Amino acid sequence: MKKLINGIDGILSESLRGFGAAHADLVAVSLDPKYVLRATPKARGKVALVSGGGSGHEPLHAGFVGAGMLDAACPGEVFTSPTPDQMLAAAQAADAGGGLLFVVKNYSGDVMNFEMAAEMLADAPGGVATVLTNDDVAVEDSTFSQGRRGVAGTVIVEKIVGAAAERGADLAACQALGERVNKATGSLGVALTSCTVPAAGRPTFDLGEDEMELGVGIHGEPGRRRVPLMPADEIAEAMVSAICESTGPKPGEPLLLLLNGMGASPQMELYLMYEAARRLCEDRGLAVARSLVGNYCTSLDMAGCSLTLTRMDEALLDLWDAPVHTAALRWGM
Amino acid sequence: MKKLINGIDGILSESLRGFGAAHADLVAVSLDPKYVLRATPKARGKVALVSGGGSGHEPLHAGFVGAGMLDAACPGEVFTSPTPDQMLAAAQAADAGGGLLFVVKNYSGDVMNFEMAAEMLADAPGGVATVLTNDDVAVEDSTFSQGRRGVAGTVIVEKIVGAAAERGADLAACQALGERVNKATGSLGVALTSCTVPAAGRPTFDLGEDEMELGVGIHGEPGRRRVPLMPADEIAEAMVSAICESTGPKPGEPLLLLLNGMGASPQMELYLMYEAARRLCEDRGLAVARSLVGNYCTSLDMAGCSLTLTRMDEALLDLWDAPVHTAALRWGM
Repeated sequence: MKKLINGIDGILSESLRGFGAAHADLVAVSLDPKYVLRATPKARGKVALVSGGGSGHEPLHAGFVGAGMLDAACPGEVFTSPTPDQMLAAAQAADAGGGLLFVVKNYSGDVMNFEMAAEMLADAPGGVATVLTNDDVAVEDSTFSQGRRGVAGTVIVEKIVGAAAERGADLAACQALGERVNKATGSLGVALTSCTVPAAGRPTFDLGEDEMELGVGIHGEPGRRRVPLMPADEIAEAMVSAICESTGPKPGEPLLLLLNGMGASPQMELYLMYEAARRLCEDRGLAVARSLVGNYCTSLDMAGCSLTLTRMDEALLDLWDAPVHTAALRWGM
Repeated sequence: MKKLINGIDGILSESLRGFGAAHADLVAVSLDPKYVLRATPKARGKVALVSGGGSGHEPLHAGFVGAGMLDAACPGEVFTSPTPDQMLAAAQAADAGGGLLFVVKNYSGDVMNFEMAAEMLADAPGGVATVLTNDDVAVEDSTFSQGRRGVAGTVIVEKIVGAAAERGADLAACQALGERVNKATGSLGVALTSCTVPAAGRPTFDLGEDEMELGVGIHGEPGRRRVPLMPADEIAEAMVSAICESTGPKPGEPLLLLLNGMGASPQMELYLMYEAARRLCEDRGLAVARSLVGNYCTSLDMAGCSLTLTRMDEALLDLWDAPVHTAALRWGM
């Protein structure tokens, strides 16, 4: 295993210290318990968004803490759920009195721990609600999930609901919006290589020199099929058709297209994949109204990418375009 | 070789098409000859900045085309200099009448071709000047360069000179500023794995399971030493000491610290390396006044990182902080 680390134990703390120092204008980092908080709290009375999950998917979630998106993020150890006490501390620090919304990727550990935290916060003045993301159309149940996995579509939920919360939408409206965006969103990933979890010290799965995993999860979970390495256009076609089959976008409907890198694929390849996917959407009469290309929801050092499509409308486009200022996404401010 | 591509020949064109479509608000892409131009030209009479070089280092340079930075970028084939006719076309398209400044990384092919382009542009109304970047302190001469290589420090030159040009500095002032920033900048890179050039189909160099290349170039050129894999803190110490020895920052002087990913290293590791380097700078009494962490000057799918330190002053900090709006760097607008 080749990694830029000092040892297994310190990775998360050392990395979080660096993140906090590099973005001191945006975030405050707590190391015990571990959470990342907006440096400048939002106005009193607004809904606070709190997310989190295992580390190794950066910039998800800490990279999305800031004005117009998340109020706090709880990083667990690599590919391991954060604990309820982290979530409790983060939520209490982020609480602006307007209610707390948890954005939770659908993995058993995350779901259970965020549920426990929600119970501990039952007396929060503005209430607590949860949005579960499960945008991965690849498989129904998986290694760490009952039902579909939450993957890169989570970024879109966090951005759009974050904008609504910033504008003053109440807790019920934020929750309903999050559920609507999640339902309008589908993703599919491919792996060309496995990721390597530092504590394991070796690749999570074996993949032959000419193989790829179609429908891979962001922890290296099995997908739909282990297949021979396909050309970019065929990969894009498999992705677009699987997502469209699941979410059923209509011709003319505006789409948000996120071409997400898994961590180790060069930007040249990501833009090439984006172009292939965009063209296939347009061939189907679908209008790509907004685009995002880059590493947003990664799987450590995995080579590969995922495609996410969200069915948008004018209101969602307006929320997507709203100002955001985080370490990993910034526009309008 | 595992890459998200359709075939070797189309990689650059397909990727550029995607880049242009994803950032249509920022850039216009020409495919014949290949260059990336600011979508909204700068005001007449200002200096236009044109850069370029072999592809495979993305987001360098096309990701830095936009307001406050580059006016045009010329991408060559992977790790291959762009041609003089690309540079000529890009420069003519970007020319705002205030002179043309070429920002050129010090590699023989790039230097020769930009020189030819400058000769072809001898009649440009505002004149033509060049800034050569050679911030890599690792080795004096290298595989593709006489003298030191230009690496990630080029991003800093492009940002600071881009800001000055936007504010109306004339060609001589922009050139002098670029040379000053380059001289104040030092970089050192490490590779944990080789990159793989698509047309070659196999890793550029062999590295043992427990080895790293200290001082590697961004095309996989040899560095100072092939050494056993070191802990992050020791890597950071080797980088900080090599750079400080070369550029001689003084205690209390503000520094810009760029911790740059080579392409395949996860963000967790980059922030961890940033933290190690930052601490070592502060231990030396050096003040890290500005920070940038991420993939800015890459080497395809190489795992590893580079550290860049620039000795700043109030004027340089002010130019660094000036608004910029490009695909890869954005603040203040």
